Amino acid sequence: MTEVATARRSRITPEREAELYEAVLELLREVGYDALTMDAIAARTRSSKATLYRQWGGKAELVARAVRHDKPGGSADLVDTGSIRGDLHALTMLSDDCKMEQNSALMRGLAMAIHGNPDLLKAFKEHLVEPEMAEFRRVMQRAVDRGEVHADSPALAFVPHMMIGAFAARTMLDEQPPTQAFLLSYIDAVVLPALCARTTTPTT
Amino acid sequence: MTEVATARRSRITPEREAELYEAVLELLREVGYDALTMDAIAARTRSSKATLYRQWGGKAELVARAVRHDKPGGSADLVDTGSIRGDLHALTMLSDDCKMEQNSALMRGLAMAIHGNPDLLKAFKEHLVEPEMAEFRRVMQRAVDRGEVHADSPALAFVPHMMIGAFAARTMLDEQPPTQAFLLSYIDAVVLPALCARTTTPTT
Repeated sequence: MTEVATARRSRITPEREAELYEAVLELLREVGYDALTMDAIAARTRSSKATLYRQWGGKAELVARAVRHDKPGGSADLVDTGSIRGDLHALTMLSDDCKMEQNSALMRGLAMAIHGNPDLLKAFKEHLVEPEMAEFRRVMQRAVDRGEVHADSPALAFVPHMMIGAFAARTMLDEQPPTQAFLLSYIDAVVLPALCARTTTPTT
Repeated sequence: MTEVATARRSRITPEREAELYEAVLELLREVGYDALTMDAIAARTRSSKATLYRQWGGKAELVARAVRHDKPGGSADLVDTGSIRGDLHALTMLSDDCKMEQNSALMRGLAMAIHGNPDLLKAFKEHLVEPEMAEFRRVMQRAVDRGEVHADSPALAFVPHMMIGAFAARTMLDEQPPTQAFLLSYIDAVVLPALCARTTTPTT
């Protein structure tokens, strides 16, 4: 986000901004990304389209920021438990099963829309993927500092791949929304053993 | 597949069947699943629609079988190398990077179509997911028999999740098709340490 954009956005109150993001998510759940129009957002939020474009630049950024707004921010600090297992479990517990099911449906829709839509991919990476990865990197850095994970562990580069796999395969193969219980067992069975493995290269 | 379906399908030669599947994949790459019609398949393959429906029941099963036909069959036996690392690496080497990129685009399209389409999900699971999982189970059983993987390893239930994560996150986050090199490093960094971990439950 540029400084100009920040300055512009600061003209609306945080309460108004939250209300607006809520309405965008509501519409997104109703019609999906492709059918969502700035006209509909303007009508639902009683804003002018000019204001929306001035504040957010466009639909992609507005949607990505709305989804981000809905997630717990500063998670890495909220879950500083003293162990990597504690931190990853605590991160999982920040969203209850109902919230997780809701988010899972939303993210699936967005993941599909991304492929025909470079603007959405860019906004999605900037406002959703990067901040979440930064949180994970802080959790991982603490684990490295404590000596739980080796700084050269090749699995560190694959934390997003492991986590996305849990969500995508759970939805697609198991046809169930991810739950806290499922994620906790996946973290214990896959993520921690991969990260904390003593030998970094298998020898056979 | 029922016995009746097998008997019906046996009326056409394997060469004709292969030719037909190739045409279905070609059309699928051109227009995607939703826009693919039995009329277009009939025209492209110079078949009657009645024959297509009699032999395959419908679009979903025809597409799933065409995708399956394009993959190396009996892979688990082809790659019996004597170690789990050797087997997983050899499985990866069965498809070259070009083939993998092609398949990845196709599978992404199908994964999207699946969500609005219970017939496709059913056919996809029956003809694609189940056979691939059965191959993986045979590779895993050999590793358990050799003592490389503990029979109670909780990661055994998550092999599909780990592998789907590699493909999905690579495409979405890294914006690159999966390559052999990427998959080999993922197998070494994530899949093998998770499966071969000595402690099955982390203690911290």
